[in-house]
Amino acid sequence: MSAPVIALPKIAASDSALAERLRRKVDELAKPPGSLGRLEDLAVQLGLIQDTEAPRIEAVTLLVFAADHGLNEDVVSAYPSAVTAAMVRTLLAGRASANVLARAVGVAVVVIDAGVAGDVGGLPGLVVTKARAGTRNAARERALTPAEVAAALSNGRAVAADAIAAGADAIVLGEMGIGNTAASALLMHRLLPAPLEACIGAGAGHDPAGLARKSAVLARAASRSHATEPFEVLAEFGGLEIIAMAGAALEAASRRRPVVVDGFIASVAALVAVRLAPAAREFLVFAHRSAESGHALLLDRLGAEPLLDLGLRLGEGTGGLLAVPLLRAAARLVTEVATLDEVLSGAI
Amino acid sequence: MSAPVIALPKIAASDSALAERLRRKVDELAKPPGSLGRLEDLAVQLGLIQDTEAPRIEAVTLLVFAADHGLNEDVVSAYPSAVTAAMVRTLLAGRASANVLARAVGVAVVVIDAGVAGDVGGLPGLVVTKARAGTRNAARERALTPAEVAAALSNGRAVAADAIAAGADAIVLGEMGIGNTAASALLMHRLLPAPLEACIGAGAGHDPAGLARKSAVLARAASRSHATEPFEVLAEFGGLEIIAMAGAALEAASRRRPVVVDGFIASVAALVAVRLAPAAREFLVFAHRSAESGHALLLDRLGAEPLLDLGLRLGEGTGGLLAVPLLRAAARLVTEVATLDEVLSGAI
Repeated sequence: MSAPVIALPKIAASDSALAERLRRKVDELAKPPGSLGRLEDLAVQLGLIQDTEAPRIEAVTLLVFAADHGLNEDVVSAYPSAVTAAMVRTLLAGRASANVLARAVGVAVVVIDAGVAGDVGGLPGLVVTKARAGTRNAARERALTPAEVAAALSNGRAVAADAIAAGADAIVLGEMGIGNTAASALLMHRLLPAPLEACIGAGAGHDPAGLARKSAVLARAASRSHATEPFEVLAEFGGLEIIAMAGAALEAASRRRPVVVDGFIASVAALVAVRLAPAAREFLVFAHRSAESGHALLLDRLGAEPLLDLGLRLGEGTGGLLAVPLLRAAARLVTEVATLDEVLSGAI
Repeated sequence: MSAPVIALPKIAASDSALAERLRRKVDELAKPPGSLGRLEDLAVQLGLIQDTEAPRIEAVTLLVFAADHGLNEDVVSAYPSAVTAAMVRTLLAGRASANVLARAVGVAVVVIDAGVAGDVGGLPGLVVTKARAGTRNAARERALTPAEVAAALSNGRAVAADAIAAGADAIVLGEMGIGNTAASALLMHRLLPAPLEACIGAGAGHDPAGLARKSAVLARAASRSHATEPFEVLAEFGGLEIIAMAGAALEAASRRRPVVVDGFIASVAALVAVRLAPAAREFLVFAHRSAESGHALLLDRLGAEPLLDLGLRLGEGTGGLLAVPLLRAAARLVTEVATLDEVLSGAI
């Protein structure tokens, strides 16, 4: 298989002299040095990403990419694929967990049909940008054609570009797709790489029999192909929302916006992005450690220490949303806290 | 020593039938059961505290209690006591870390002079309610009289009552007081109890020599008295801001408002509150695990698993502020997320 010509955006490395200036600025604030812990490192990272000594994170947009997985014909999820479309409707109605958390933290939500198989036609507010309606069943055949992979990546880029053009200082990557921990496990297995069984977890909720069935289906899918090249791996296993998320991450990085990575599936999308363009790594802010088995290993191999550890395993971007106030707080520290000099000199 | 008559507010236990109803409500939401992890437990706790199936956390007030410690005559802190007054001025100017984080998460800040020794007279916006200007040096004599302890407790109650009357759905406990990790170590040692050395940490920042000096001063203070009764322990060691914070916690609990507990010092104030009124325990939400040595042990003995672990050790309520969005998110889940029935029946 030869990959189609796929345009990846240019991602510039950050300025190491700026890193020193940001660190010094944080050290001079009116507080014991280091006493804001990881918030200080986050402040420096945000300044580097935005290429400024005055980072600013106010407007944030959650992009929820939804798609279906042919793999679920073989029942890799505890839920039927029709739930994807039902949850898309719920997200558009503002009644899903992600909407509620987004309101709590003041984040805009964009819902994208990146490949839903069920009926979501004509739903107001839905951004429809799908390479196809669900992947083919990767346990039996290649999930996507190379052209579909390229389209999904490009669709994700366009969605992120639109959000940033509309004013987003940062984006949060979220998803909805019944069966997508299964596809994610295959991608992680092949792109990290790691033994397949270390990548498989209970997803939305499996009993031991369900988990065994999922493992057997994924072993069959993995045995179909020995691809390790990123584009080929994406074509073999999908999924459409994961590829679009990777595209969105690359686009945001190229536009110097932080990408808040939610849980297991979003982290796999981040892995895809980093395999396609290693320079994207420093633009990623890992929000939380998911309860999904496999996430800890993935984070560790990406050198990521997530900000939160609250036992979440829902997806939709919920964990990413909860990290947004930390980004806002970190960015403000750099520009708004008095320096120790100002305080001790009586200037305040 | 006989304690003066001190009025403690009545704190009613929560309703166990309500706990079951809240748990069921959370389980029926449109998400895999348990998939929002600790946010689900927090939602139930908030409902129980507010005695409702529809908890609501929107308006939140940070109370920053400031005071000085006579102990610092013997240099138990890396900073001179004058910094307390300087930071009070910075807090009132909106330029301290706590102000900046409070703006980032939308929380009101009230700064209270609960016993500052330096000059903060006539500062606009400062709530002055001090039993005295700094404690006596607990390494040499009793820090406070019983009447001063009673006044500090009562002052803290009044401040919390005012914040709640003004509309706060929850309060965050913060503090500013050079030397207050030293006083906190003594209180923890005697009230937990725990060996003194397990309660002493580097505070705002000590080199090994500074830490050794702090330990020696605290050993001298501890050897002056063998008090273990809470009021006597408070009189022996202070501090004025810690006692006021305990009073604020008790008042908030009696008014069924969650009390967000910041780091080491706020947790010691929470310990004081729980020793005075064990029923206060369930009203406490522990925000974060501080980098201050001793905090982990204290949390463990209080049965507290804090929400965040970001290496903070600043105080001022900074860690408490970062947890506020989690409380708001948890409360909204219960009332705003669709049920799985609604989603699957096509009602949405």
